[in-house]
Amino acid sequence: MGAVEYRPGLEGVIATETSISYLDVDHEEIVVRGYNLLDLARQRTYVDVVGLLVHGSLPDERGRAELERQLLAAANVPAELWQILRLLPRQMDAMDRLRTAISALGGWDQAANSADPEQDRASGLRVIAQSATIVANLIRVAEGNEPLLPDDRRSYPENFLWMITGREPSAAEVRAFDQTLIAYSEHELPNSTFAARVIASTLADLYGALTGAVASLKGPLHGGANEAVMEMLLEAGDEEGLERLIRAKLARKERIMGFGHRVYMRRMDPRAQLLKETLAQLVTERGDPEGEKLLRMCQRGEDVMRSEKGLFPNLDYYAAPVYWVLGIPIDLYTPIFFAARTAGLVAHVVEQHAHNRLFRPRVLYTGPRGLKP
Amino acid sequence: MGAVEYRPGLEGVIATETSISYLDVDHEEIVVRGYNLLDLARQRTYVDVVGLLVHGSLPDERGRAELERQLLAAANVPAELWQILRLLPRQMDAMDRLRTAISALGGWDQAANSADPEQDRASGLRVIAQSATIVANLIRVAEGNEPLLPDDRRSYPENFLWMITGREPSAAEVRAFDQTLIAYSEHELPNSTFAARVIASTLADLYGALTGAVASLKGPLHGGANEAVMEMLLEAGDEEGLERLIRAKLARKERIMGFGHRVYMRRMDPRAQLLKETLAQLVTERGDPEGEKLLRMCQRGEDVMRSEKGLFPNLDYYAAPVYWVLGIPIDLYTPIFFAARTAGLVAHVVEQHAHNRLFRPRVLYTGPRGLKP
Repeated sequence: MGAVEYRPGLEGVIATETSISYLDVDHEEIVVRGYNLLDLARQRTYVDVVGLLVHGSLPDERGRAELERQLLAAANVPAELWQILRLLPRQMDAMDRLRTAISALGGWDQAANSADPEQDRASGLRVIAQSATIVANLIRVAEGNEPLLPDDRRSYPENFLWMITGREPSAAEVRAFDQTLIAYSEHELPNSTFAARVIASTLADLYGALTGAVASLKGPLHGGANEAVMEMLLEAGDEEGLERLIRAKLARKERIMGFGHRVYMRRMDPRAQLLKETLAQLVTERGDPEGEKLLRMCQRGEDVMRSEKGLFPNLDYYAAPVYWVLGIPIDLYTPIFFAARTAGLVAHVVEQHAHNRLFRPRVLYTGPRGLKP
Repeated sequence: MGAVEYRPGLEGVIATETSISYLDVDHEEIVVRGYNLLDLARQRTYVDVVGLLVHGSLPDERGRAELERQLLAAANVPAELWQILRLLPRQMDAMDRLRTAISALGGWDQAANSADPEQDRASGLRVIAQSATIVANLIRVAEGNEPLLPDDRRSYPENFLWMITGREPSAAEVRAFDQTLIAYSEHELPNSTFAARVIASTLADLYGALTGAVASLKGPLHGGANEAVMEMLLEAGDEEGLERLIRAKLARKERIMGFGHRVYMRRMDPRAQLLKETLAQLVTERGDPEGEKLLRMCQRGEDVMRSEKGLFPNLDYYAAPVYWVLGIPIDLYTPIFFAARTAGLVAHVVEQHAHNRLFRPRVLYTGPRGLKP
């Protein structure tokens, strides 16, 4: 082994081979098993993408219906899980509750000690389904209310959105929500997916890998960004307020959430463009003045950041107002990101277990030597 | 950014700078903040090493006593945590229970949403103390019994061992146990420490990072090895049995647990040598025929593996029989590894948060391109 140049944060370092996805920055394309993620978001459903990620190919109409049936049939969780969530302190962060729930869930899966790819797929479909049920009920159960249990007469995204808000969504709302799920479904090797693969590489099981991914996604530099964006938009109040707020933060050299991305540095995250269109369609369809104001605010913020810093919005910047317009509580934005991403995470754990090599890098030691106790 | 050669498992890749520890393979030394880990194990206590890792320097006698008092004062856990553990299914793996407990524990720490190094240190000492209490009671509580709560009139290692076995340990047993805790306390950047730093690099909190480390340690290629070693020794029965078993496994090209290490490939893990001596002392002191047989078996296994494969034992190979002789249930070997390693993990999370750079590597995409949905 020769020496390898030290790259902080492993920036630009290739950590694994994968046939799951790839960010082709030069061509502005997020490739998912050969497809452009934006094509999938515009022409397919989240359940199709689950099939593509977990089983390796896009299902036909009949295959999609069967997969949707399987997911809804697996969506209930053990009653003890709600009891566990009720025992956690009320002030506990929603992502910390979710992390605890995903960890606990392994207890009810006989395959929780396996590192077999076929078993990962079967357990993975269960977790994808159950994550939606847990995420949708995190706040309800924390507040001492009964969970809203899955209704298998609805489609997968309709049931998920209905469990979150407790009200009947329109077809346009379900479609917008489904598009956010596809946008969040898979994205090569972000920190949470890398964490999941690192953990899985000890031949630890799927639940452990997913629990680590929730822990990572909670971080404000990762999944936590979509909630921070919405807080910023609410604090700003209107277009002028947002411009003032961003300029004041820039003057204090503070980070503006929702802008910039390690991989997309010179162009806009294609998913941000997709969800910007989703937001515009949703707002137009509903004739919603508050939504229209949010859209104008986001455009203003985008313009200011481009001219001042040359930075482009990322996915979280437009996911936040879409979720706001859909009536989703802010504390659930990052948990929903996780529920959507379970599809990609399961695919990565399957791939890691199928072609495993333990992750075990080295360090550059900068401390003293030769001390005597 | 130029291209970087792809190294599967990041083998030989430098992932971070650190002043915490370093495996100097050429000099057969595990350096911990400038000290040789074996010097620490022979001349100091685990509580001293906690001070060294978390606060950065070895405490004097008064500092050690104060730290030991702090740890024992913080060792109780909320009653709800025992209720949560009782709600998990009986057959759930001890490491999965521990993972769930560490995740839940964050709910009772107001600092659980922080990425501030000073707060990490304060919360870290709590978790180091509470981990011992949780680990010691994992089986007891799973079987529906009351936990054995910390007794602050005892030393830290005596209390830990007493909570595990429920019987009064001898001074030699406490010392042997303390040496295993030091041996497990810190070891540069194994998979679990790397997982913790990857998660912490999103500015996710200490509890999330530690939860990810438990998930990683569960894996049979990592922490799970110490339990696998003991199962092998029990299956073998005696020296001849072990030699037959190892030769049969080698003929079937199966992995022999407790041998080989990514970093120590040409020499013996110094910690294995330390715990071999610890085992010999413990067995001699007690005049224990079963322990003597275990020691002879381990020596035979070591000889066979060296001559057949050129492989040396690692820490887990000798930790397992020490724990067996101490009367510790096998299911707790890996949880104890975690409890001991919390000291090093806390130091790594502190360091990551203090000098953060998000871990976000890239992939080598091997899948198709240009498909149309």
